Amino acid sequence: MMSNHDEQFEATHTEGSKMGIDLVGKTVKNKQIIFKGYIDGSPMENDMELKLGDGLKLEVPKGSNAIVVKNLYLSCDPYMRGRMLDFRGSYIPPFTPGSAIEGFGVSKVVDSDDPNFKRGDLVSGITNWEEYSLIHKTDQLRKIEQDDGIPLSYHVGLLASGAVGQLVGQLAKLHGCYVVGSAGTSKKVELLKDKLGFDEAFNYKEELDLDAALMSRYFPEGIDIYFDNVGGAMLDAALANMRIHGRVAVCGMVSQTNRTDTQTFLNMFSVISKRVTIKGFLQSDFVHLYARFLEDITGWYKQRKIVYIEDMNNGLESAPAAFVGLFSGKNVGKQVICVASE
Amino acid sequence: MMSNHDEQFEATHTEGSKMGIDLVGKTVKNKQIIFKGYIDGSPMENDMELKLGDGLKLEVPKGSNAIVVKNLYLSCDPYMRGRMLDFRGSYIPPFTPGSAIEGFGVSKVVDSDDPNFKRGDLVSGITNWEEYSLIHKTDQLRKIEQDDGIPLSYHVGLLASGAVGQLVGQLAKLHGCYVVGSAGTSKKVELLKDKLGFDEAFNYKEELDLDAALMSRYFPEGIDIYFDNVGGAMLDAALANMRIHGRVAVCGMVSQTNRTDTQTFLNMFSVISKRVTIKGFLQSDFVHLYARFLEDITGWYKQRKIVYIEDMNNGLESAPAAFVGLFSGKNVGKQVICVASE
Repeated sequence: MMSNHDEQFEATHTEGSKMGIDLVGKTVKNKQIIFKGYIDGSPMENDMELKLGDGLKLEVPKGSNAIVVKNLYLSCDPYMRGRMLDFRGSYIPPFTPGSAIEGFGVSKVVDSDDPNFKRGDLVSGITNWEEYSLIHKTDQLRKIEQDDGIPLSYHVGLLASGAVGQLVGQLAKLHGCYVVGSAGTSKKVELLKDKLGFDEAFNYKEELDLDAALMSRYFPEGIDIYFDNVGGAMLDAALANMRIHGRVAVCGMVSQTNRTDTQTFLNMFSVISKRVTIKGFLQSDFVHLYARFLEDITGWYKQRKIVYIEDMNNGLESAPAAFVGLFSGKNVGKQVICVASE
Repeated sequence: MMSNHDEQFEATHTEGSKMGIDLVGKTVKNKQIIFKGYIDGSPMENDMELKLGDGLKLEVPKGSNAIVVKNLYLSCDPYMRGRMLDFRGSYIPPFTPGSAIEGFGVSKVVDSDDPNFKRGDLVSGITNWEEYSLIHKTDQLRKIEQDDGIPLSYHVGLLASGAVGQLVGQLAKLHGCYVVGSAGTSKKVELLKDKLGFDEAFNYKEELDLDAALMSRYFPEGIDIYFDNVGGAMLDAALANMRIHGRVAVCGMVSQTNRTDTQTFLNMFSVISKRVTIKGFLQSDFVHLYARFLEDITGWYKQRKIVYIEDMNNGLESAPAAFVGLFSGKNVGKQVICVASE
């Protein structure tokens, strides 16, 4: 995919990898996925477009404190839909129409004016959906310590955001819980049970009465903890089946397509009768726990106590379709785009 | 109201009051408010009926551990509507059709087979909507220490359940909060501001856009704590205006008429974006704090740091209309029925 692979390697540099050094000062046509404009409903592929840039010089201006990176892996996450809406009241601002889409990624430093990063470093954090990015907000990036036991792309998935449900269930199992998962295809249901080790799983699209299914089949004694990633009807069914003093951790509401969508609840009164606690949270409030999380997850993964399912698409061009597919459940596991493998 | 007032007083008894002793062994026609049958919507007066009993002997069977009481004050509370529904899944069982309505009251002991209570004692707790009651569940009763500074009826209101909003706001003021109240008539709005000392109050029936009113007029910087007694549209508007890490204490949902009513939310996503905690609670979970509550409230009331508004109706006959009036906001302050003044 790279047009610069055949250029001369400058042997005088010994730090970093060949690739990172090779490119400094070169001008590249920078492929980008552009956000075309604000949407109302579900994202569609033509809300984004592939654009070839006019030419980007891979060099950081002195005094800018910025870095230039080559993007390797990009993360497709449901929360990004919220940034496609023309709404400034949320926890993260909307995308800028006409600019490249912003998201989590794993990248390699090509040039740096920031003393904390040097050429060849691998970083994870907010970057753009393009081949190369000039990043000013370097304080939001984390340097990746490479580890042969952990694929690089896992730094946008297993070790960071996304594919939350598969991990939550496994962590709950590790902590002794009885775990029931919900998914939208029978293939995923089998994965939850056979590969991830959930005690039970069901296909929510095949349940005529979610409330009754939870009560009679999976939680005859009620739910102690409901991890909510979808909102809407599933949350409502869970509320009906909570145990007294049960807890609902709200991480996402992927069932909600528009900001003007309403959610209708039949069982909100359970909050009182069962004395339920519903608590929303954002990853950004828990950054101080990241080091511990990284250590725990890396350890469990290497000990094969947890499994991680990744859905990798190849090529920046594949990003819009992969992103759109999240909302119809096309992905199996964490959706990642491989822009370049090194 | 009492037919027995002219009967002979037995001067040999010195414990208790005249009334309590007078009646022992007498047979009375016991007026009752009977629950006729389960309802679907808002309660109506003819869901209840006044009945004159066949004759109740005011004497406790030996070995029963029960007591017989004369009911003085009965409490009308919105939660009682829930007991009129044919639904066994809530925190309190439904009423029994054909039997007297059950509720909080202040009563005087006429006869006792329970060593913890003696004739003439005043008690508060669960009794029936009738002139005299035989109570077996005496462990749910509290003995009242009479205090000239605190009217007896306050033991079903200020010092117990009901009329929650007026107290919550005043307690929040005592703890340094800026307090905005909501009520359904302009008279009540004035009371909240002028008599109870709320910083602001508004008539929710006159607000075309609750969300906008909260944001622009009362909470331009957002709501830290929302005490929810109503659910529905008001909860939705509050959610839209919560501050980050704001808290919602859910005590009641009086806006909900039926168990099959749905609540529709436009702003449930705020739970995530603002990291809101919603927590339901029941008074019964906090009984262990009652002694402290009683001491605090009694003290503040006597120091005139809090004010209490009571809406007293006279006569057991007035109970059905008074109860029904709760749901159209007819009452001003805590609704109490005076069955007998001593």
